[in-house]
Amino acid sequence: MTTRWLSPEEQRAWRAYIAAALLLEDAIDRQLQQEAGMPHMYYSILSTLSESPEHRLRMTDLAERLKITRSRLTYAVTRLEKDGLLRREECQWDKRGSIAVLTDEGMAVLERAAPGHVETVRVHLFDHLAPHQVAQLEEIFTGVARALQGDEAGGPAEDVPWRRRSGKPCS
Amino acid sequence: MTTRWLSPEEQRAWRAYIAAALLLEDAIDRQLQQEAGMPHMYYSILSTLSESPEHRLRMTDLAERLKITRSRLTYAVTRLEKDGLLRREECQWDKRGSIAVLTDEGMAVLERAAPGHVETVRVHLFDHLAPHQVAQLEEIFTGVARALQGDEAGGPAEDVPWRRRSGKPCS
Repeated sequence: MTTRWLSPEEQRAWRAYIAAALLLEDAIDRQLQQEAGMPHMYYSILSTLSESPEHRLRMTDLAERLKITRSRLTYAVTRLEKDGLLRREECQWDKRGSIAVLTDEGMAVLERAAPGHVETVRVHLFDHLAPHQVAQLEEIFTGVARALQGDEAGGPAEDVPWRRRSGKPCS
Repeated sequence: MTTRWLSPEEQRAWRAYIAAALLLEDAIDRQLQQEAGMPHMYYSILSTLSESPEHRLRMTDLAERLKITRSRLTYAVTRLEKDGLLRREECQWDKRGSIAVLTDEGMAVLERAAPGHVETVRVHLFDHLAPHQVAQLEEIFTGVARALQGDEAGGPAEDVPWRRRSGKPCS
């Protein structure tokens, strides 16, 4: 098969994207580590639970919302549970499942961390974008995420992180 | 200070971006692990060296090109050196510096891995973008990366990963 190398325009876009994505994640992680003592993914776990009914979600659904493997989620949830920010409950209708529940302390930590986190996202991303670029960003990445999750023709992809049997237990 | 919360449009764009970025990095890492036995960052180290004169770069410059901390780079370079894919040399004009040099074996591994990697990037990203979206992607993230690196008014940012004294030695 002939390799479909990237065009100069695609190469420039790819390099800009990779550089910005690494720098943005670094800035977000550092702010959250300094102000809330946790990396971005841990904050996202608390934030996702806070938006769910009764502040609870099945671990499988939580992994899907966060786009990560169940082993990576389990590792993070164990840490957050030790800190008292969430607790795990057995799932009544599925013995294999378990449910993560945000605690009051977890909600309080989230509420204290949220303003600084949102300001970081704004300062490093949205303050540099015109309104039409916000729409472009959404359009581009909604399509990319949908394709990677197999939401288009052919049903769900088998190889998404949250359906994978094993994964790196690294946060 | 009043928190400048994200608008609904910004929230949608942010969530789409985060989801796609995680899924894309996961797909790229998996392809490279399966076909070349290394994660994306290790591939990027070999690729960056291959584009430099004489296939060599100071470690400090390599960290800056890759947008990572020197400790993260050192960890990765040590692994790649053990596998014979690069070697380190003392820097003649700066005893504190050292230089990473791509070996012939590293170049051969890179050349074997490149077609599969580029195909993965194309299938999961560029195949979903119209030409005007490629230009939008470049414009958005060039501005974001430039601001995070302090290339605008005020000179270089002190807090970029590659100038940081300590960092997580985690790949």
